[in-house]
Amino acid sequence: MPKKTVKEIADHVGAEIIGDASVVIESAATLDSAGPGQITFLSNPKYTPRVKTTQAAAVLVARQVQTNACQIVTEDPYYAFMQAVVLLHGHRQHPQTGLSQQANIAASARLGKNCNIHAFAVVSENAVIGDNCQIYSGVFVGPNVTIGDDCVLYPNAVIYDGCQVGNRVIVQSNASVGQDGYGFATHKGEHHKIPQIGIVILEDDVEIGSGCVVERGTLDNTVIGKGSKIGDMVAIGHGTKIGPHCLLVPQVGVAGSVEMGHHCVLGGQAGIVGHLKIGNRVTIGAQAAVINNVPDGATILGAPAIDANKAKRAYALIETLPEMRQKLRKLEKEISKSRTEGS
Amino acid sequence: MPKKTVKEIADHVGAEIIGDASVVIESAATLDSAGPGQITFLSNPKYTPRVKTTQAAAVLVARQVQTNACQIVTEDPYYAFMQAVVLLHGHRQHPQTGLSQQANIAASARLGKNCNIHAFAVVSENAVIGDNCQIYSGVFVGPNVTIGDDCVLYPNAVIYDGCQVGNRVIVQSNASVGQDGYGFATHKGEHHKIPQIGIVILEDDVEIGSGCVVERGTLDNTVIGKGSKIGDMVAIGHGTKIGPHCLLVPQVGVAGSVEMGHHCVLGGQAGIVGHLKIGNRVTIGAQAAVINNVPDGATILGAPAIDANKAKRAYALIETLPEMRQKLRKLEKEISKSRTEGS
Amino acid sequence: MPKKTVKEIADHVGAEIIGDASVVIESAATLDSAGPGQITFLSNPKYTPRVKTTQAAAVLVARQVQTNACQIVTEDPYYAFMQAVVLLHGHRQHPQTGLSQQANIAASARLGKNCNIHAFAVVSENAVIGDNCQIYSGVFVGPNVTIGDDCVLYPNAVIYDGCQVGNRVIVQSNASVGQDGYGFATHKGEHHKIPQIGIVILEDDVEIGSGCVVERGTLDNTVIGKGSKIGDMVAIGHGTKIGPHCLLVPQVGVAGSVEMGHHCVLGGQAGIVGHLKIGNRVTIGAQAAVINNVPDGATILGAPAIDANKAKRAYALIETLPEMRQKLRKLEKEISKSRTEGS
Repeated sequence: MPKKTVKEIADHVGAEIIGDASVVIESAATLDSAGPGQITFLSNPKYTPRVKTTQAAAVLVARQVQTNACQIVTEDPYYAFMQAVVLLHGHRQHPQTGLSQQANIAASARLGKNCNIHAFAVVSENAVIGDNCQIYSGVFVGPNVTIGDDCVLYPNAVIYDGCQVGNRVIVQSNASVGQDGYGFATHKGEHHKIPQIGIVILEDDVEIGSGCVVERGTLDNTVIGKGSKIGDMVAIGHGTKIGPHCLLVPQVGVAGSVEMGHHCVLGGQAGIVGHLKIGNRVTIGAQAAVINNVPDGATILGAPAIDANKAKRAYALIETLPEMRQKLRKLEKEISKSRTEGS
Repeated sequence: MPKKTVKEIADHVGAEIIGDASVVIESAATLDSAGPGQITFLSNPKYTPRVKTTQAAAVLVARQVQTNACQIVTEDPYYAFMQAVVLLHGHRQHPQTGLSQQANIAASARLGKNCNIHAFAVVSENAVIGDNCQIYSGVFVGPNVTIGDDCVLYPNAVIYDGCQVGNRVIVQSNASVGQDGYGFATHKGEHHKIPQIGIVILEDDVEIGSGCVVERGTLDNTVIGKGSKIGDMVAIGHGTKIGPHCLLVPQVGVAGSVEMGHHCVLGGQAGIVGHLKIGNRVTIGAQAAVINNVPDGATILGAPAIDANKAKRAYALIETLPEMRQKLRKLEKEISKSRTEGS
Repeated sequence: MPKKTVKEIADHVGAEIIGDASVVIESAATLDSAGPGQITFLSNPKYTPRVKTTQAAAVLVARQVQTNACQIVTEDPYYAFMQAVVLLHGHRQHPQTGLSQQANIAASARLGKNCNIHAFAVVSENAVIGDNCQIYSGVFVGPNVTIGDDCVLYPNAVIYDGCQVGNRVIVQSNASVGQDGYGFATHKGEHHKIPQIGIVILEDDVEIGSGCVVERGTLDNTVIGKGSKIGDMVAIGHGTKIGPHCLLVPQVGVAGSVEMGHHCVLGGQAGIVGHLKIGNRVTIGAQAAVINNVPDGATILGAPAIDANKAKRAYALIETLPEMRQKLRKLEKEISKSRTEGS
């Protein structure tokens, strides 16, 4: 890994230096674990005291703090830290397998330049793959799938027939994209499969986590908007549209035909029932059960989900229910007694 | 895709026509998006006003409504719509790979007629596969597994040793069937694995969604009953019996040794603790936590799950807890004051 | 399968016999289903009446009970049962494929003795695998991964680059270990991927269930402690440390940077938010939402999670909220009335 001086890093991220610009940085680390030769960052002000005692050689900060470490001052220290990590450690280097002799690539498939198609990957009939793509082992690219440039499909990811994947999309291991939506017509007690004629569209810069399941649409398409990042083991229902730049943390479930705006953030294990409209810049807490439409900018929490501020107070009071009930009974007795005495 | 006249579709589904029977239908679509050349349906009466304004060429309805579209009147419009979608679009056409030279098929395995075993699929020793099965790439059919006729195993589905799969069963991508049940004997602080000697039985017409995990039984078998449809990313515990014709929506979890009746419906992310008995025709709401046996026909909701009507009112009142506490305090003060004044 | 006499089993598990030591046992079964030639066990005293009527040939018990079955008396009957099941049924016999010609093993990989590397498994550059390992089909062992002795990686399990796996580790099918942590720096509304430079360490005797997703660390490593058993479809966040001998039941989610002690037990679908400290011997109920640090020995339940005893009473009272509100209103009216009358 390349070493960099504090000056080189500060120049790279466009920041000011307070301290010795010639200090050499070898790697990045957390505030608590960073030692000599390492760079760290402070973005949450509540950790400011820890910067005082850090053993790090350098720290990215939003404003000057008390510390022995060299300070690199920049408006968005976490973003600058990301840039520093890329500079020092780089992104994953992918094995250069070229088109493996052990891959199964259909004669009718079209491949761009500089792709690595690993052993035991399948590229089906009429699939189109752009330039510089990494198709790992066990990946299945179904018939008529199109994939843009600079994509990475990790081992055993599956893209069903006809789905469309943009540029710079990452699909992690064992994720499924485009499997049949959960659509059945129940008639006389039996459930009949409805052909799922929609597809899944993953727009540019989407990331799909390991073990995710993104259903194809029954009639309409399922869409994950540009730049949205879907954590591990998230389930997206058929025909749902996730807007651009959303963050869906692991184990979230979004049922079918939901329309979600842009820049939404969903906490772990949150669930959204089908056919709802979720506005822009909505924040949904972990384990929330969303059962109503949500307006732009709302922050909600709880099961059922309500305004987060209300929810924090209300759900914390569940604990006091036995006490409340006792008080209520006591009051009833006293009232009843005073009524008797008064009569 | 084949075009059909309204007459051909109505004849196929056994329905009456109100309007021009010669109109040509090219494809199916939702009520909101359907346009000329498309057929749609109305099954939920609350969407009746939208039929008035639909641009669809034809609409399947249960009774005559106000609309410019040609009406096809039938008792169960959603079921008829399913039939129309099959007629117009068909089910997925599977690649005709035959027995791929790149598949790994044990010499002792027995295969029926007209199977497609794709590249990089594994059929292990003594496995038996029926006629007309589609075994996609990366599928693992373990030793001694039996699979019936007309089954589809999508890419990277795994069927562990000895499991039994009926006819017309579909297992979507990256699903696991028959992995070891979660069974350990804890002794002196260490957890010792108990051999899981049961298997999984998937009865006829079962569908298992992508990313599902269906544990084999410790001693008894795990069974998914005939015609039950298991959504994506559902976890079924060891020794659990799911009855016939159940619908388990994505991300449901059923712990071990549960006995569930027929025609149950479980909402997303619902969980059932182990060893419970769930009756027939039970409906369980999304995110419900089922901790007690459930009688036939019950509809339950909430965590912990209670009667759905009660639950809807009760869980909605969590929001009012701060207000209730305040009122309680006010009453206590007033009572205390009146007592003091009275004394 | 080998038959054993009661005497042979009792000797093997170190127990006393009450009854005929020469009875032949062929297999193991549950208390309810066991019949002639079968052995079962009683560990939960509430099932004692069922032992009276069991048809089993032999039963493992902690102390003498009323039954016609031959009794094998031992301190820990469930542990003894596990030993009996191993004796009678054994653990899974793995196919002896040796190093399959259809596997893809990098020239720079180092393999121990007696490994079976199945068709379509991948062992990448510089990976190191110990003795007696079973690497099933579709498994991906990434570059620079190290795996100890006696490990089993079931079909389509994926171990990303650089991760470290101890001895006697089992990874079930379709599990992902070491995929990128969910780490993005959001800048001007776009989410930028932070290289995830940590790895995952699975210590000795760990089991990872089917469909699990264990993220690699952003900067620190993710660690699953010795002897911990992770159920199916569990999500572990980046940088989280699970201590030794923990039990995480299916569908649990643990966010990033959590530090968990030893011998913790987590119920199904429980969730833990990031950066928390969970003590030793903590028990967390199914579907619990853990949002605060948890001290050693605590048993917690509910969403939000509180002391289990409190939670059982409190959450059960949610059902009474409509009634409580009604009573409150009634009291308010009476007080108001008595005040009016008093004035």
